[in-house]
Amino acid sequence: MSKATLAEIGEFGLIELIQKRLVDPGFLRVGIGDDAAILDLAKPEVVTCVDILVEDQHFKKEFSSAKDIGHRAAAANLADLVAMGAQPLALLLALAAPSETEVEWLIELVDGIVEEANQLGAALIGGDTTRSDKIIVSITAIGQLENKPTLRSGAKSSDLVIAAGRFGWAQGGLRVLQKGFKSPNLLVQAHQRPLIDYQAALTAANQLNSMIDVSDGLAQDALHIAKASGVQIDLKSQNLIPDDLLIEAAMAIGDDPLDWVLTGGDDHAFLATIAPDKAIPVGFRIIGEVFKGEAKITLDGKELLGRLGHDHFAN
Amino acid sequence: MSKATLAEIGEFGLIELIQKRLVDPGFLRVGIGDDAAILDLAKPEVVTCVDILVEDQHFKKEFSSAKDIGHRAAAANLADLVAMGAQPLALLLALAAPSETEVEWLIELVDGIVEEANQLGAALIGGDTTRSDKIIVSITAIGQLENKPTLRSGAKSSDLVIAAGRFGWAQGGLRVLQKGFKSPNLLVQAHQRPLIDYQAALTAANQLNSMIDVSDGLAQDALHIAKASGVQIDLKSQNLIPDDLLIEAAMAIGDDPLDWVLTGGDDHAFLATIAPDKAIPVGFRIIGEVFKGEAKITLDGKELLGRLGHDHFAN
Repeated sequence: MSKATLAEIGEFGLIELIQKRLVDPGFLRVGIGDDAAILDLAKPEVVTCVDILVEDQHFKKEFSSAKDIGHRAAAANLADLVAMGAQPLALLLALAAPSETEVEWLIELVDGIVEEANQLGAALIGGDTTRSDKIIVSITAIGQLENKPTLRSGAKSSDLVIAAGRFGWAQGGLRVLQKGFKSPNLLVQAHQRPLIDYQAALTAANQLNSMIDVSDGLAQDALHIAKASGVQIDLKSQNLIPDDLLIEAAMAIGDDPLDWVLTGGDDHAFLATIAPDKAIPVGFRIIGEVFKGEAKITLDGKELLGRLGHDHFAN
Repeated sequence: MSKATLAEIGEFGLIELIQKRLVDPGFLRVGIGDDAAILDLAKPEVVTCVDILVEDQHFKKEFSSAKDIGHRAAAANLADLVAMGAQPLALLLALAAPSETEVEWLIELVDGIVEEANQLGAALIGGDTTRSDKIIVSITAIGQLENKPTLRSGAKSSDLVIAAGRFGWAQGGLRVLQKGFKSPNLLVQAHQRPLIDYQAALTAANQLNSMIDVSDGLAQDALHIAKASGVQIDLKSQNLIPDDLLIEAAMAIGDDPLDWVLTGGDDHAFLATIAPDKAIPVGFRIIGEVFKGEAKITLDGKELLGRLGHDHFAN
C-alpha cells in the first residue's frame, strides 16, 4: 500500500485509513462514519474557528514534509482557540488532494494533525475529502472555555503588552528556503513546524485583559487588538531585538531582520495585554505598553505605517 | 466597487464586506472579528460536520451563478445535520479564491450561503479566507438535537425504506450542461441549486429508525445504511420510475435515466427507514424495504453491483 495513490484506494479507502488513526476522546457520542459527529460536551458553550491552507500559498511540498504540514495546519487553528483562552477539544478536517497523491503522504499529514492536537488533549473526529489540483487543508476547531474569554477588545490603557513565543522565525525560514538555502536549520524548522507554547497561554488566560494569536505578523495583529480595544499600542524595539541567528540569515539574503520580527506571520506567538500590577505570567515577556488614544501601532513612539503584515490577496 | 477584485480590496476588505452581511442569530457571544467565535447554545451537545467543494470538481462558474454555488455549498452541510435529526444553528466558511476574482461574485456566493441557511434559521457566523488558483468553499455546520439522533446504524429488518426529495435530477442537469445544452430548465436548475425539504426530515426525525442525506447517490448511500445497520436494503423499481423529464433528457444524450436515479448525487434527498406500523411522514414516500441478511443493496431482489455512486478520486 505504501506507494498507492488516492485514485487506487478511492475516497472510501482513504476515509477508512484515516478512521483507523483516530482515538476516541471520550466525549464522542457519534464519531466518523455518519452524516455528522455528535459531541457530548461539558458545557453548552462552544468556541470555534476555521482555517484554510492551500498548497503553494501556505506550504510547498518541497519545503515541508507531510507531517510538518499537518502540524502547521492544526496549529493554526489550535492557537486561535487558545488565544481565546479556550481548551481545544475536537478538530474536523476538510481535505482536498489530486488523485495521484500518494496515500502514505496523506496519512503522514493526518498523523501530523493528530500529533499536534494531542499536545492539547484534542482529537481529530471527522471530516470530508475530495479531489482538487492542489492540496487544500481546512481545519475546524471546537473547544470550550474554562474561564472568561480573552478577547481582542479587552486591552486597557496602561496595560503591559506581553508575548509568548517567537517573532519572525517562520518568516526567516521561508525566506531562506525561497532563496534556495536549506539552513540555518532552526529557522527552516520554524517555518516547517511552529513551536507553540499553548500551555503558557492557557495558564495565563485568566490573568490577561486581551490576547491574540500572531498569524498575520506582530504589527498587524497588534493593530487588531488596538482597533478592537480603541487603544494605541507602543512596541519597544529594545524588547524586539532579533536573535543573532535571524540577523545573520537576513543579512545573508539582503532582508531586514526587524521586518521579519514585525511583519512575519506563522510563528503563532501569543500576543497579550495585562494590567501593570499583575505578575508577568510564566512563558511571557514584556514587549510594549498600551496607551489611550487613536488606534494605531507605534514602535518606540513612532507610528508604524505601510505593510504591517500578511494580506493573502496582496500581490 | 462592483468590479473590484480581491487583490484590490484585500483580505481584510473582503472580511469587512462579509461581516456587513451577517445577521446576529442571538446565541453569538462573540462573532466574526476575533480569533474564534463563541456560541452560547441551549444544550451541551453539539452536532457538527464539514464539506469541501472545489471549482471544476463540484461546480463550474459557467454552469452556475455564484449565488447558486453558495446555496449548494451550504445545502451540502445543512442536509448532513438534518439527516442526523439535528437543527442547524451556525455555519463557518473557509473560502479560497484567486486574487483576480471579482468581489461582487464572492459577495453573491456569501449571499447564497446566508439565504440557504436562513431557510433553517441558521446563521453564517465567521470563517477564513485565503488565495488559491481555484475557488474552494468549505463549510462547517454546527447544530443541536431536539430528540434522539437518526443514525445510519438504526435500520431494522422489516422497516420500510422511505425518501423525501428527488433522485437523479442534479445528475441529469449536470449531464445536459456537460453535453453543451442549457435545458430542460428544471433539470439544469436542479444541478445549480438543490431543492431540499429540510422541514420534512426534521419533522419526521423522531419517527424514523435511520436516516441519511443522499449526496453520493441513492444506491451508495443506501449501502451506507445497510452496512452500518447490518441489513439488506431492497429498492423497488416501480417506486423509482424516472420522471418523463429525466427519461427524455437522458435519451436525448444517450444516458440511462435509471442510472441517474440510482447513482446521481447532489439532490440531497433524505433516505430513511421507518417501522412498518408507523404512518409515512409528510413529504416522504415508500421506495423499498429492509431485510435481514448480508449488508447489500438489491433492486427488486437482484443485487446492484459495480459503481454505485460517486467516488471523488475515481477516474
